[in-house]
Amino acid sequence: MRIKLTVSYNGKNYVGWQKQKNGNSIQQEIENALFVLFGKAVEIFGSGRTDAGVHALGQTAHFDADENMLKSFLNNKTKLNCEKLVKAINNNLPNNVAIIKAKQVSKNFHARFSAKQKTYVYLLSWQQTPFNNGLAWNVKIPPNIELMQQGANALIGTHDFSSFCSTKTQVKDFVRTIFSIKIKKEKNSIKFEICGNGFLYNMVRIIVGTLYDVGIQKLKPSDVDLILEGRNRNLAGKTAPAEGLYLKKVGY
Amino acid sequence: MRIKLTVSYNGKNYVGWQKQKNGNSIQQEIENALFVLFGKAVEIFGSGRTDAGVHALGQTAHFDADENMLKSFLNNKTKLNCEKLVKAINNNLPNNVAIIKAKQVSKNFHARFSAKQKTYVYLLSWQQTPFNNGLAWNVKIPPNIELMQQGANALIGTHDFSSFCSTKTQVKDFVRTIFSIKIKKEKNSIKFEICGNGFLYNMVRIIVGTLYDVGIQKLKPSDVDLILEGRNRNLAGKTAPAEGLYLKKVGY
Repeated sequence: MRIKLTVSYNGKNYVGWQKQKNGNSIQQEIENALFVLFGKAVEIFGSGRTDAGVHALGQTAHFDADENMLKSFLNNKTKLNCEKLVKAINNNLPNNVAIIKAKQVSKNFHARFSAKQKTYVYLLSWQQTPFNNGLAWNVKIPPNIELMQQGANALIGTHDFSSFCSTKTQVKDFVRTIFSIKIKKEKNSIKFEICGNGFLYNMVRIIVGTLYDVGIQKLKPSDVDLILEGRNRNLAGKTAPAEGLYLKKVGY
Repeated sequence: MRIKLTVSYNGKNYVGWQKQKNGNSIQQEIENALFVLFGKAVEIFGSGRTDAGVHALGQTAHFDADENMLKSFLNNKTKLNCEKLVKAINNNLPNNVAIIKAKQVSKNFHARFSAKQKTYVYLLSWQQTPFNNGLAWNVKIPPNIELMQQGANALIGTHDFSSFCSTKTQVKDFVRTIFSIKIKKEKNSIKFEICGNGFLYNMVRIIVGTLYDVGIQKLKPSDVDLILEGRNRNLAGKTAPAEGLYLKKVGY
């Protein structure tokens, strides 16, 4: 039986999603929880990695389990009691990682390869408080939201996003489609919501870093077009810090 | 020169406001920051203690400094550059403690003895997330806000609050005045705002614990009157946890 999990986490004290030797990862926390629950090692497959310090509101992952492992979560020996399973896993997780949902899926489902779109949120704040530490990018100058939205419009659609990809990538195909970029002002913060069919390494963070430069008039909105056409990472703004980034939703 | 500070802090990893041998306190963090800044030990006096895990949006404190210590913060050798002082102290503080304001006050001002009223906020939530860990009381059952407000009305005014005071107190006079209790529903949480001329040990937390029992119909709103009249801590509800409590404002 293949099970899909939807996961929320505060990435502040983690090396990222992916298991690593040099620190705690979200993947490891969940695998540990499943090990305690089932009494045997279970590997989970995420929709993709998130970097150190990046958060999730709705990361997805899948794992396989046999009937014997799941026996206390099956009604009439066939139907999965998803709520009970969610509670049981959460009982073995620290407070900064939470399973939101569990769902039985077909054997063809793969958290990574079946993904059709992803939505990220990015929070930027010009009032650091003792309560948002590690949860937003703390900037000194409030950016102009209209200028940023003008700049963002150039990025909507299908483009070669080489200029918005970390040079550390191993990917060869830089073409991606961005469906929408919504920018909303809240009290002392701005929330970006970016939806696309997939994102290159650091792409959301480089987009936000570049749009921030537009918002503080270091760049003109029309420069975003030129940066995109230039296909060169050096043309774009800096990579906004990990702490403002949230993986909100993975669509299948 | 006497200086008043307004301080915000996330109490999650602290033993409380007051200096203690067995852990980090907010007072110690600020005194350390002042020591680095001035090169000599400075004692600060808070408006009152806050317990381990309790937060502040606007705690107040004062300290004394001579002209020599303050020389880089004085305009024309007399007027304090408050903004510059705030920045300089914050540079030596961890992210979970922040000075919001500094102000020159008269020698008669005392953060504790001059205080005329205090406002506390209490947050209660029925949706724990990886992002509000330690910042709200996580309850299982959402309480009824109208019932809680009815119960709260009995507490407004000047009363003997013995029933709403921890038995560990050393205070002899249990009479206090509550000016207002506002209860507001937000998405998956409820915010209490309680204003009074002073509060007994654990008083806000016992009030919230008791009103929650009213909100989930374990007590009737009219029971709050009887609890108040009984002058016995055992009659009231349990002490709500520290993590939901915020000292919002100290009025002078």
